[in-house]
Amino acid sequence: MGGTDVSGHDHTGDRFADDPAFGVHEGGKLSVTPTRAIESIADLALTYTPGVARVSSAIAAEPELARRFTWAPRVVAVVSDGTAVLGLGDIGPTASLPVMEGKACLFSEFGGLSAVPVVLSTTDVDTIVETVAAIAPSFGGINLEDISAPRCFEIEERLRERLDIPVMHDDQHGTAIVVLAALRNAAKVVGRDISDLRVVVAGAGAAGVACTKILLEAGVGDIAVADSKGILHAGREDLTSVKRWLVENTNETQFAGTMVGALEGADVYLGLSGGSVPEAAIASMAENSIVFSLANPTPEVDPEMAARYAAVVATGRSDLPNQINNVLAFPGVFRGAIDAGATSITEDMKLAAAAAIADVVGDEVRADYVVPSPLDRRVAEAVAIAVADCARREGVTR
Amino acid sequence: MGGTDVSGHDHTGDRFADDPAFGVHEGGKLSVTPTRAIESIADLALTYTPGVARVSSAIAAEPELARRFTWAPRVVAVVSDGTAVLGLGDIGPTASLPVMEGKACLFSEFGGLSAVPVVLSTTDVDTIVETVAAIAPSFGGINLEDISAPRCFEIEERLRERLDIPVMHDDQHGTAIVVLAALRNAAKVVGRDISDLRVVVAGAGAAGVACTKILLEAGVGDIAVADSKGILHAGREDLTSVKRWLVENTNETQFAGTMVGALEGADVYLGLSGGSVPEAAIASMAENSIVFSLANPTPEVDPEMAARYAAVVATGRSDLPNQINNVLAFPGVFRGAIDAGATSITEDMKLAAAAAIADVVGDEVRADYVVPSPLDRRVAEAVAIAVADCARREGVTR
Repeated sequence: MGGTDVSGHDHTGDRFADDPAFGVHEGGKLSVTPTRAIESIADLALTYTPGVARVSSAIAAEPELARRFTWAPRVVAVVSDGTAVLGLGDIGPTASLPVMEGKACLFSEFGGLSAVPVVLSTTDVDTIVETVAAIAPSFGGINLEDISAPRCFEIEERLRERLDIPVMHDDQHGTAIVVLAALRNAAKVVGRDISDLRVVVAGAGAAGVACTKILLEAGVGDIAVADSKGILHAGREDLTSVKRWLVENTNETQFAGTMVGALEGADVYLGLSGGSVPEAAIASMAENSIVFSLANPTPEVDPEMAARYAAVVATGRSDLPNQINNVLAFPGVFRGAIDAGATSITEDMKLAAAAAIADVVGDEVRADYVVPSPLDRRVAEAVAIAVADCARREGVTR
Repeated sequence: MGGTDVSGHDHTGDRFADDPAFGVHEGGKLSVTPTRAIESIADLALTYTPGVARVSSAIAAEPELARRFTWAPRVVAVVSDGTAVLGLGDIGPTASLPVMEGKACLFSEFGGLSAVPVVLSTTDVDTIVETVAAIAPSFGGINLEDISAPRCFEIEERLRERLDIPVMHDDQHGTAIVVLAALRNAAKVVGRDISDLRVVVAGAGAAGVACTKILLEAGVGDIAVADSKGILHAGREDLTSVKRWLVENTNETQFAGTMVGALEGADVYLGLSGGSVPEAAIASMAENSIVFSLANPTPEVDPEMAARYAAVVATGRSDLPNQINNVLAFPGVFRGAIDAGATSITEDMKLAAAAAIADVVGDEVRADYVVPSPLDRRVAEAVAIAVADCARREGVTR
């Protein structure tokens, strides 16, 4: 019965026939299947009652056995409320499902993990935290996805405190890990140490905040962060608590102008905001500049124009070199954390992941190859090993 | 990477090696996999960004497209708080996972549906209702499982009211559907009409209440229901609201004695309680009696003893004829409801499911064949068709 089209749609004269993306989504992109077939009464008696009762009893007596005899430790919940989906914004849980299913496909393909989309009919922070905490025993990790800022910061922080399984908001940390990996290699290309770089981060949402934090941890020299009203500085009176934290930890000179103004003489532009940057601003950057323009599908800086001024250009686009794609990070990060039995994903584990991604490129690094291809199967395995090693070293394992 | 043992256990000298049930559970029993491989950048660009954005946008504009282009409508959440697991009782969410995974395997094997175990860290009725409502957009149906009475009644009722997808507590209605199917055929064997039968139901928990209700709807003559303190009657002052409902709708003579007392002259014993019934009580039943003794693994009535007095004997055991197994009902019930786009599972849909199960046995009916084998692949398909037809006839479809 599995093969029939349960939607029962008549596809004659189908208005979606011209776009292969709809073909790929027909009937959904995921399936839950038993790992062993049930072909006899004996199979049934082991997989289900009465055999299953012995396994459940053993786990009740010794809860750690669940790591071995249930699927939960290898399952990641991909949790979203649909409020900040790709560049589409607040489209709600149901419309966000294809994105979460796609993410789950990538967890399987690259991380060898199962993942289940969990989209929520609520956008209330307390309800989201309570809901995820309530379903947490079903899963080995929680990947928060496409939840709008600043709610995403509080939700992630509260769930990290509350749960003893890895919790990561991928729009923040997945992006941050890959950006750091790319910046490490881009610095190599231009012969610079990242501690000497002056960086302008355009965007103070989920990705902007997380990228800034990881770059600070990695020792980047100075960073100026801009939101839609310009560079964050101590004189601004409209700041959320996250932005106040940024002001205290970035912008050494307390520059108080526009993002474009800050670009003058800067080494790195990191675009995470959408919109567009004028050519003159890119031209005003330092010699051998680095431009990461990650808005999708339209980068903030036209890549061809950027190439006229910058030594290294990266985007989020799959049809250009140096694609900054989170798939380089999240499958390996969760796989490594789960393999090690990690109870959380620490800052050092993220730094280890970034180093592992950069190291896959290794000596082949060049201006149009600062990150591996998103299809490079070596990446997730290298990241998983680095993250698991780090977790064990830090002792954050069960 | 998918094949390695993520639990990292050393299995040398394994104390679980002697029980094949543990072997079947190693690493868990389920896997989430993509329905289409991701082998090229083009695949990635259709399954994930940027292609997925077009599908999400289309669904945002026209939510009904989610039925066609997401997996959610074909996914059943198997939700439990682990408070009434098999005969093991309140073993908690983690220890209940193998049971929920087993259930999900059966949804896949027999219903062609995906199913995801969702076990909860709370037993609070309000929190369970809010949690399931919050995650509901991720699923096409909610199978409540192994939640203790009387909480299960309120949880199911509130979720049925709140959600527009099928919600069914399987311990109640799955059991009830199969019991009714078996009783229809058992009545045929003894040449009786079910409207003439006098039934004693031992057990007023989830299964006892639901079986009583469906037997009443099917027109069974008279039913006396017993809890641990004896037959429910109007003189009892210790009754929950569900038991008060039963008193008002059963026990025509308002018999006020013990369960054993009620068995004298009764046609049908339906055991859903555990414990044991003395031989004299079974011997005191009417000629050509019917004994369904469903406690697992130890039936309330020893099946060999029962066979000395009763014309038809059924149990929950897989090693005996006439196994009353919920797997005959739930895969087809949910598949039919989902195929029809049903917004709920109605009483008539359950009656239709019971009739379809009984009809698979058809003219081959005999004392040791009143229900099909749980492995009979015809059952789920017949049930799905009957349930879908009924839903369309009733107009409870979207």
